[in-house]
Amino acid sequence: MTDYLASVRVHDPHPEDHLTSSAMLQDVVIGLSDGLTVPFALAAGLSGAVASSGLVITAGLAEIVAGSIAMGLGGYLAGRTEVEHYAAELAREHREVVEVPDRERAEVDELLAEMGLSDSIRRQAVSELTADPEQWVRFMMKYELGLEEPDPRQAPKSAFTISAAYAVGGLIPLSAYFFTATPTQGLVWSAAITLVCLLVFGFFKSRLTGQPAVAGAIKMAVVGALAAAAAFGVARFVSR
Amino acid sequence: MTDYLASVRVHDPHPEDHLTSSAMLQDVVIGLSDGLTVPFALAAGLSGAVASSGLVITAGLAEIVAGSIAMGLGGYLAGRTEVEHYAAELAREHREVVEVPDRERAEVDELLAEMGLSDSIRRQAVSELTADPEQWVRFMMKYELGLEEPDPRQAPKSAFTISAAYAVGGLIPLSAYFFTATPTQGLVWSAAITLVCLLVFGFFKSRLTGQPAVAGAIKMAVVGALAAAAAFGVARFVSR
Repeated sequence: MTDYLASVRVHDPHPEDHLTSSAMLQDVVIGLSDGLTVPFALAAGLSGAVASSGLVITAGLAEIVAGSIAMGLGGYLAGRTEVEHYAAELAREHREVVEVPDRERAEVDELLAEMGLSDSIRRQAVSELTADPEQWVRFMMKYELGLEEPDPRQAPKSAFTISAAYAVGGLIPLSAYFFTATPTQGLVWSAAITLVCLLVFGFFKSRLTGQPAVAGAIKMAVVGALAAAAAFGVARFVSR
Repeated sequence: MTDYLASVRVHDPHPEDHLTSSAMLQDVVIGLSDGLTVPFALAAGLSGAVASSGLVITAGLAEIVAGSIAMGLGGYLAGRTEVEHYAAELAREHREVVEVPDRERAEVDELLAEMGLSDSIRRQAVSELTADPEQWVRFMMKYELGLEEPDPRQAPKSAFTISAAYAVGGLIPLSAYFFTATPTQGLVWSAAITLVCLLVFGFFKSRLTGQPAVAGAIKMAVVGALAAAAAFGVARFVSR
């Protein structure tokens, strides 16, 4: 699901309008999507294989910590990489408009031709777009490479939000095992609570990305249920 | 890490050149990144808390199955959503160029102004770009909304590749517990094997995305080691 959200974020036609709140909301969605699903399925799987709720809780907490660090730190490093990548490409374009201006001018012309502009307009447009080196580089970055300048403060914020959302999402299904006597009872409550959460979350997530909300709710619940059922089957088979 | 790769894929300036192989390679990277990290950290965490390798293996396999279904099915549904989203936006743009042509023409003009074109060129360019409705819509899709037409066959392929890569990545650290007598021995071998794999994988992943390769190798290993150490600490604390 991360892919789709990332592509929506990158292509947001009005990033300046609602960057902070919307980026944060998307990070919450990314973290919750995985957090509600994987720890739930792992705990469900172990419920069919072990006799002690304590073991389910231990494994569940270990998974939540591992997953939230991997996602959060992974997200942070990916954000840093994006900032470095942008800076490196920017430096390269600045160099290229000075060192190989003819080739860069031809690239501008090619991009305008792809848009559908005729020869005569392109000739004028190329000379306008390449008159000021700053503007020329900005054009290349955006339309040749499709890169928008990333905000360096976004990476640590995203990392924290994704991590926290994963942990919160994971603790919801696991909480059922705290209050029940056996793993089987825990599984029943955990499944009930989590399916409701997945339906509600899938509904709002779809609304957020402008998709049909009821279908989104059902999809989300089906992913969680299938992952849990498969984990349950495998764990029971292995532990025989 | 998925975010960065997704943005690279979406913005690939020459998608037609190497779509299949490169998209597949990126899916392998997405699956392996998480597969090498999270099951490794979970197994490491449990090694400090339980006395039986069998339990570590059961939990590890349950996690691998849960994670690979959640990632694979999640990826498949995200891909389908992207195809539906593109179709819905395409239909809307087709409607808008017929129903509110003046507003759409103003939007083309605005986009060209953002590129840095002067009034006089824009007037001609707008009339050229809006002469043919098909071309007009294509321009709006790409430059207003930043959407490229997704390949509907990509979603199931991606889902399968990500799933399989996650499972392969997860089985590497877990395999150590098959061949050792106690969880502690398993952990030592698992950590050694996985850190080597993370270094090698981080190196090639960075090469693939044009980043400094040695730094990428170290980052990948640090994420895995931190996730494992934290999971170990939490599981030991909980199981006391």
